[in-house]
Amino acid sequence: MIDRFSNKVISRLTLYHCVLVDYIEQGINFVSSTKLSKLLNIDDSQIRKDIKLLDYKGKCKVGYSVKDLKEIIEKRLTFSKNKDVFIVGAGNLGLALAKNDNFDYYGFNILALFDSNDLKTGISIDEKQIFHISKLPDLAQRLGVKIAILTVPHSQAQKAANFLIDSGIKYIWNFTQCILDVPEGIHVWNENLIGHFLQLTIDDTQIES
Amino acid sequence: MIDRFSNKVISRLTLYHCVLVDYIEQGINFVSSTKLSKLLNIDDSQIRKDIKLLDYKGKCKVGYSVKDLKEIIEKRLTFSKNKDVFIVGAGNLGLALAKNDNFDYYGFNILALFDSNDLKTGISIDEKQIFHISKLPDLAQRLGVKIAILTVPHSQAQKAANFLIDSGIKYIWNFTQCILDVPEGIHVWNENLIGHFLQLTIDDTQIES
Repeated sequence: MIDRFSNKVISRLTLYHCVLVDYIEQGINFVSSTKLSKLLNIDDSQIRKDIKLLDYKGKCKVGYSVKDLKEIIEKRLTFSKNKDVFIVGAGNLGLALAKNDNFDYYGFNILALFDSNDLKTGISIDEKQIFHISKLPDLAQRLGVKIAILTVPHSQAQKAANFLIDSGIKYIWNFTQCILDVPEGIHVWNENLIGHFLQLTIDDTQIES
Repeated sequence: MIDRFSNKVISRLTLYHCVLVDYIEQGINFVSSTKLSKLLNIDDSQIRKDIKLLDYKGKCKVGYSVKDLKEIIEKRLTFSKNKDVFIVGAGNLGLALAKNDNFDYYGFNILALFDSNDLKTGISIDEKQIFHISKLPDLAQRLGVKIAILTVPHSQAQKAANFLIDSGIKYIWNFTQCILDVPEGIHVWNENLIGHFLQLTIDDTQIES
């Protein structure tokens, strides 16, 4: 049994899981790698390889049991484990993420939001309170929160990241378009929305030479 | 000169570009592949390989000119070309994306939002009007819009996608957690937020065997 899947495997397993959730709702019991391949535009053999990593085998000519495969992915990707999270920056995107009631399912537990704007503090969004940013170090320590979603304006991103790191945050999900300069041991995921948009659309707008 | 970069190259070039934008602001004139490597946690040799694809060479011992490299990436990734976009679903996330004034820079031009809720239609968000979804086919055709951002609730995602495709939309940036079943020739980018969150955090919560 491997300890940790590669990032690419985690990403693909999450996508398979999305299909399985929909299939459960639709009352579909089995799915083949060919069907997953068509839906996700991922190579058939890659899908079989990924699912083999779960030590799970499909049934010949029927495919994978939707229910079993869904449960195994949930277990191996630790959906049932609570992952406590702070949102830093209560702007439009921060509020939108706080209101996403889909996240709970994945163990993704948003505890509170933080902002430097006094006008926003004290308000609650879906039972999650917005605190002044100055309260973050104390709350992070008392609640043992190590994960933060960063949605502050670009110009404040590095300063906010430094503050989070000083407060004991180890994992930063970075939605700002700023690349953060962080010390070793701090994990950053750059949510590269612009990159994704370009990957989707760029074959429409031929590259100029 | 290659016609189109691979998705991975596009993604990385966008990240390099983010660093270059910050460096211009900070008045830094040169950057090395080593520095980019450290900031982005991408292998040094990979960065040099990517930049070589742009037919651009750095200066020995000084590195890449920040200004030149930024301009070349912008040209090759067609930032100056307008890419007209509709947002479908004027919920929290749709509104947050509509309000992102950073997108313009990349040629990413949000023209309007659409929703099935009559209470939302007629309102404008940052000069972008929310129309009733029934107006989309006509507007898409008249304005020649081929790209849509899908931010409707999960339960309505497939139905909305079918409607978009019937209306001539060819590129769907899918923010719902639903995997869309689309015909050939339709391009979908699944914005796999859950997958990204898990990739960031999963080494914290050891995989159970």
